[in-house]
Amino acid sequence: MTRLDTVAIVGVGMIGGSLGLAIKDRRAARKVIGIGRTSSSLMKASRLGQVDRTTTDLAQGVADADLVIVCAPVAKVAPLLKEAALHSRPDALFTDAASTKHEIIRDIARSADLAPRFIGSHPLAGSEKSGPEAAVADLLLDRTVIVTPVRTNRAEDIRRICRFWESLGAHVVRMSPEEHDRIVAATSHVPHIVSSILAAATPSAMLPLVARGWLDTTRVAAGDPELWKEIVASNRVNVLKALSRFERVFASFRGAVEQRDWKKLNGLLERAMKTRTRLENDALGS
Amino acid sequence: MTRLDTVAIVGVGMIGGSLGLAIKDRRAARKVIGIGRTSSSLMKASRLGQVDRTTTDLAQGVADADLVIVCAPVAKVAPLLKEAALHSRPDALFTDAASTKHEIIRDIARSADLAPRFIGSHPLAGSEKSGPEAAVADLLLDRTVIVTPVRTNRAEDIRRICRFWESLGAHVVRMSPEEHDRIVAATSHVPHIVSSILAAATPSAMLPLVARGWLDTTRVAAGDPELWKEIVASNRVNVLKALSRFERVFASFRGAVEQRDWKKLNGLLERAMKTRTRLENDALGS
Repeated sequence: MTRLDTVAIVGVGMIGGSLGLAIKDRRAARKVIGIGRTSSSLMKASRLGQVDRTTTDLAQGVADADLVIVCAPVAKVAPLLKEAALHSRPDALFTDAASTKHEIIRDIARSADLAPRFIGSHPLAGSEKSGPEAAVADLLLDRTVIVTPVRTNRAEDIRRICRFWESLGAHVVRMSPEEHDRIVAATSHVPHIVSSILAAATPSAMLPLVARGWLDTTRVAAGDPELWKEIVASNRVNVLKALSRFERVFASFRGAVEQRDWKKLNGLLERAMKTRTRLENDALGS
Repeated sequence: MTRLDTVAIVGVGMIGGSLGLAIKDRRAARKVIGIGRTSSSLMKASRLGQVDRTTTDLAQGVADADLVIVCAPVAKVAPLLKEAALHSRPDALFTDAASTKHEIIRDIARSADLAPRFIGSHPLAGSEKSGPEAAVADLLLDRTVIVTPVRTNRAEDIRRICRFWESLGAHVVRMSPEEHDRIVAATSHVPHIVSSILAAATPSAMLPLVARGWLDTTRVAAGDPELWKEIVASNRVNVLKALSRFERVFASFRGAVEQRDWKKLNGLLERAMKTRTRLENDALGS
């Protein structure tokens, strides 16, 4: 594919809407079809210039697409992919934007028609906000998109998917679905859980006295509970391993405070500070 | 005190420098004296217009002040206050900006001359940045300053300190030093420790793949380890209690994931989300 002809975006929320805007801004495709469950949200996306045409009929929406991108909560991705594959062109490619990859790929592996044409993607550009109103054209600019090919994918198709993300301004990193899920458990899912624990563990009477540190540390806890429950459920084993790693470091910190071992506490805080400041000036698009 | 004549700021870093700027901006005093250990940092503060005069000699710097504000790491506050009291006017008032209050007040309680004239303060306006270069004039604008009077303070002096902070644009909340320390353990010290644990528990090889969620959740971990070690050491019992509360909620979250109790996980995430979003649009100056 040099330039895409028709991209179908299944699910036009914050991510799907942002992709639509970016595709149209950068002329990465001739036409963007927005597919959604409710016409009210599709109308919003259309009014905001995120898509050229909209439909609530999945079969009709994907019929002409050479690329179908499913932007739905993780548990809905595989069913939507299977349904879309039944109604799309035989040469269409499929990708997604979900936060975990292994479960989706396992789920569609037996669809001999779909499996070779689905190449999983995860744009590292989430937000606690949702809906087409929260979409922004530069969501992917200088961000990382992890692409997780498997053995049944064709090399040329993998390259096409990578080039698609790059055409929206993103950096692509390739790895296996298993490695992806192991990494995001530590870099995203456990931070979300820990942030939620902090928010939930703060007594309400104290809330009027929180400052910027608390607000930053708990920001992601404002994310959609239903969505995050699904993400955690689809990455349970890796999340439990990353929680155990967190717990071991927690025990070191607590032990230092309990035993008044201030030298040890200083060392632990220094290790954390060094890890954090190493990223301070990185081009992470933070 | 209608308007102050001379304010002495002991320690002109991010907080001290910001106070100097705010005092001069709002003409809250006729003259601001900056007192520091090194002339290089004092020169910076002077060049940045944060103070009118500077000295490395504490005795000389506080001699004419009607208000002395010690902006130093928590373990240094009480020694500096005692030293300053020896050389200041008999009617001078004293306050500070440290993150814990009980230990400082206990430490100076036997200084019969100083204790009645020291009224502890804690501006809830920290930053992971430090030094006079990081100072900003509106650091306190619409922020909260907790003032922690004790029985030996005169009502008129307490009012003067509260009015001083209000004159810089802050809201004042009054409470006992013990209550203050109990609250900040949960709203600030444990979030800092947890943020540090998250940073330290993330394997280095994964760092290039972190996204905005990780960066926000770990931002405060970039703070000065020496400073935070002192803060935790000066509030050990409250921090341990707040860590235990965190641990109990952690066990609930972990249990839900372990037992695949997704309904329970959803409930926990929802409780966290509701707590966090309640503050989303608050005038917290986040």
